[in-house]
Amino acid sequence: MRVAVIQMPVLPDKLANIEKAASYVAAAARAGADMAVLPEMFCCPYQTANFPRYAEKEGGEHWSLLARAAKDSGIYLVAGSMPELDADGRVFNTSYVFDRLGRPIARHRKMHLFDISVSGGQHFKESDTLTPGNQVTVFTTEFCKIGLAICYDFRFPELCRLMSDQGAKVMIIPAAFNMTTGPAHWEILFRLRAVDNQVFTVGAAPARQLGASYISYGNSIVVSPWGDVLARLDENEGMALADLDLTLVDKVRRELPLLAHRRQDLYNLAEISPAKKGVQ
Amino acid sequence: MRVAVIQMPVLPDKLANIEKAASYVAAAARAGADMAVLPEMFCCPYQTANFPRYAEKEGGEHWSLLARAAKDSGIYLVAGSMPELDADGRVFNTSYVFDRLGRPIARHRKMHLFDISVSGGQHFKESDTLTPGNQVTVFTTEFCKIGLAICYDFRFPELCRLMSDQGAKVMIIPAAFNMTTGPAHWEILFRLRAVDNQVFTVGAAPARQLGASYISYGNSIVVSPWGDVLARLDENEGMALADLDLTLVDKVRRELPLLAHRRQDLYNLAEISPAKKGVQ
Repeated sequence: MRVAVIQMPVLPDKLANIEKAASYVAAAARAGADMAVLPEMFCCPYQTANFPRYAEKEGGEHWSLLARAAKDSGIYLVAGSMPELDADGRVFNTSYVFDRLGRPIARHRKMHLFDISVSGGQHFKESDTLTPGNQVTVFTTEFCKIGLAICYDFRFPELCRLMSDQGAKVMIIPAAFNMTTGPAHWEILFRLRAVDNQVFTVGAAPARQLGASYISYGNSIVVSPWGDVLARLDENEGMALADLDLTLVDKVRRELPLLAHRRQDLYNLAEISPAKKGVQ
Repeated sequence: MRVAVIQMPVLPDKLANIEKAASYVAAAARAGADMAVLPEMFCCPYQTANFPRYAEKEGGEHWSLLARAAKDSGIYLVAGSMPELDADGRVFNTSYVFDRLGRPIARHRKMHLFDISVSGGQHFKESDTLTPGNQVTVFTTEFCKIGLAICYDFRFPELCRLMSDQGAKVMIIPAAFNMTTGPAHWEILFRLRAVDNQVFTVGAAPARQLGASYISYGNSIVVSPWGDVLARLDENEGMALADLDLTLVDKVRRELPLLAHRRQDLYNLAEISPAKKGVQ
């Protein structure tokens, strides 16, 4: 399974971003990729005020262009994330997934909103304009099951465990760490989540743009289940390719059986059922 | 709170190891340490056949020498781990903690036994001779609450979360990673567990001895709640000192409120109560 991680800058022109993304998806297909992954908010400059402005409904104009890009290239597309407007006027940070025929097969709404205030560092409050999602997302491909979460979601080991328990052998994370959290945490996060859950992890970030109000760390990354970095970009625009040998998941789980060695007689991590938590 | 991490070699002579540990504890106290931490199985060469041979009951001869070392130096001692024989003839990998007066204040029995078989790498099967413990361990000092786990235990994010939920601001891990898992995972494990749980992490390992049947990676380490490495040894015998500014725990938890941002309406990690799991 060949994955292409696309690290692109984000311009104010939503359509221009979509078109650029589509050209990268085509390039990924030409490079033999089975799946292309776009960054978080790849078509909306990352500012809370922008999210409602750029939001559109699922099935909308730009959504349709992404579906067509997947279909035209014949590869899976994890379409980073974009602001989604629902029927009640709420806005979500949403990642759509299209299959090789351009059909929507999954949707993840960011569950953990990024509200941070580091003294002398990064400030941001997604919850000013966004509503959180309420669903763990794992989708099926002919290769394996794949977990999908967005940026800050990945900070939470519980969510990663649930994706792993639901069969994910790969975790794909459109993300946009910043110049405070990126250098400190980005690489070790992707590496140790891979090791803990014995999965491949894939992080796709926007390219760094020093003029932006929120400066992305970049460094899109692909990590093996043993924690080895298989591909990594620097801060600049580009595309990284990585071949995921999924037999490695089984090998690592057999040799160092972390998942089987959990003491589930002593602790239990449970997803709270939709019936109990109310429907999103 | 000043912590001394003691990275010592492990000799076949149990008493010689205890005496060496005691001399390091005295040195730690002279260096102003409030707490000394010894490595996993610091007085028993790490081989499954040795564990029953070297095992002694809590309160035994060597245990008493460790209690005295703490009392004589007037500092806390997290006495790495040693094989513990219980009344039923079972053997545990146990870490004892003594306070400044030499009184036993905590005991952790390794909960996750290390059974690994990496092709071309490390093989080991603790469960051949050891029985696992069944208790999460958090103890109280005048500085803060401290979580205690042993080596492979630390691989399990669930246990770390439970220690954090039970109030730990520091996690102390006597450990002995090897030349397969050490270079691959040791540093990122201590760094990301610290970041995820917003605690200090302290890892104490035996010094590397190339003639040993199990070769320790060494690299004893102390990490801040932001993931910064505060102290780290190489493979050689030695002692590392680190000052833990516990206000940093509160600062990091305020600025990047990961623990508060968990979606506990969507997932729940619970310790299974002793009543349900049977008494150890």
